[in-house]
Amino acid sequence: MKFSPLVDELIESLRCLPGVGPKSAQRMAFQLLERNRKVGQKLATALERSMSEVGHCQACRTFTEQDLCPICSSPKRGTAGTICVVETPADVLAIEAGGHFMGRYFVLLGHLSPLDGVGPEELGLALLEKHLSSEDVTELILATNPTVEGDATAHFIADIARRHNVVISRIAHGVPVGGELEYVDSTTLALSFNGRIPL
Amino acid sequence: MKFSPLVDELIESLRCLPGVGPKSAQRMAFQLLERNRKVGQKLATALERSMSEVGHCQACRTFTEQDLCPICSSPKRGTAGTICVVETPADVLAIEAGGHFMGRYFVLLGHLSPLDGVGPEELGLALLEKHLSSEDVTELILATNPTVEGDATAHFIADIARRHNVVISRIAHGVPVGGELEYVDSTTLALSFNGRIPL
Repeated sequence: MKFSPLVDELIESLRCLPGVGPKSAQRMAFQLLERNRKVGQKLATALERSMSEVGHCQACRTFTEQDLCPICSSPKRGTAGTICVVETPADVLAIEAGGHFMGRYFVLLGHLSPLDGVGPEELGLALLEKHLSSEDVTELILATNPTVEGDATAHFIADIARRHNVVISRIAHGVPVGGELEYVDSTTLALSFNGRIPL
Repeated sequence: MKFSPLVDELIESLRCLPGVGPKSAQRMAFQLLERNRKVGQKLATALERSMSEVGHCQACRTFTEQDLCPICSSPKRGTAGTICVVETPADVLAIEAGGHFMGRYFVLLGHLSPLDGVGPEELGLALLEKHLSSEDVTELILATNPTVEGDATAHFIADIARRHNVVISRIAHGVPVGGELEYVDSTTLALSFNGRIPL
């Protein structure tokens, strides 16, 4: 025991956060105890409430404490004809940061991974198919990660979607803006050649 | 609004932790929500309890939720004749990690800084003097940081301690073990020459 049990427990608990080692946890605990007790209390309340109240949106499966997330419940976007399929809620944030996509999302909360027991059921594909079979959906954009698992998941979903009357597309993969050809890996370069666009 | 209000609040609250920016806060929130709800609850409880219950040891001023910290209340160390003065509770941890010091501590919780309104009263020097005037204290080790403020604080405390019958010393400053002379700054090198020990 280095400190009193309660302080030790706080330091130990802070280590559960990703990217926080023993030294950072200690620094966080001391900073909160020394200077920011009110902020610490606020964090405790936010954590407590989030952990017990936050569930998943009934339409798109992203995190929300309501039945529908703000995007799905917005009159403009909730009934948009385009659905963008992503792996995680963080991907929704990344796309929303751009502000160019005005459709709605469907969050898989993972990717197909038979070895880990993640199949179509865990990804909520029945719910996605329900959306696809409704009249108002016209386009499905597959924005899973460009990894082996992400690609496999995209192809699996595309096979399902072909049974319905929707346009299916996969986001483009290629050289990122600001990147230099010299430093881009060969697979990405090959994809960027295959996906070239006529000018 | 990017997410539901509660998720946004959790991300915002996590940003109050030192070294946590918007992306890390988002990653922490999602990891807790996706995989570690129980751990999140435990962290919330630890935070809540620590922020309201942890105070300062009545003898050495380090963090504890009891009247006396484990070191001060240990029969071996609580009455030791040597007191080591440090600036923060983290310094106590650093010295305890070595395991070579078997006396007790006195934590200033800062250093003299008249511009910030930190004077002898804020550092609890009256309490330290009370310890010094008791019969059983024989040695005072000043282990404040080797900064301008830390040195000034050490000298100020040494002046107070001279009125009492104790041996006063300052920890040695010099080339750290494993360090290379080539990369040590000139002030540290000068201190290591001044503090040379006859062999």
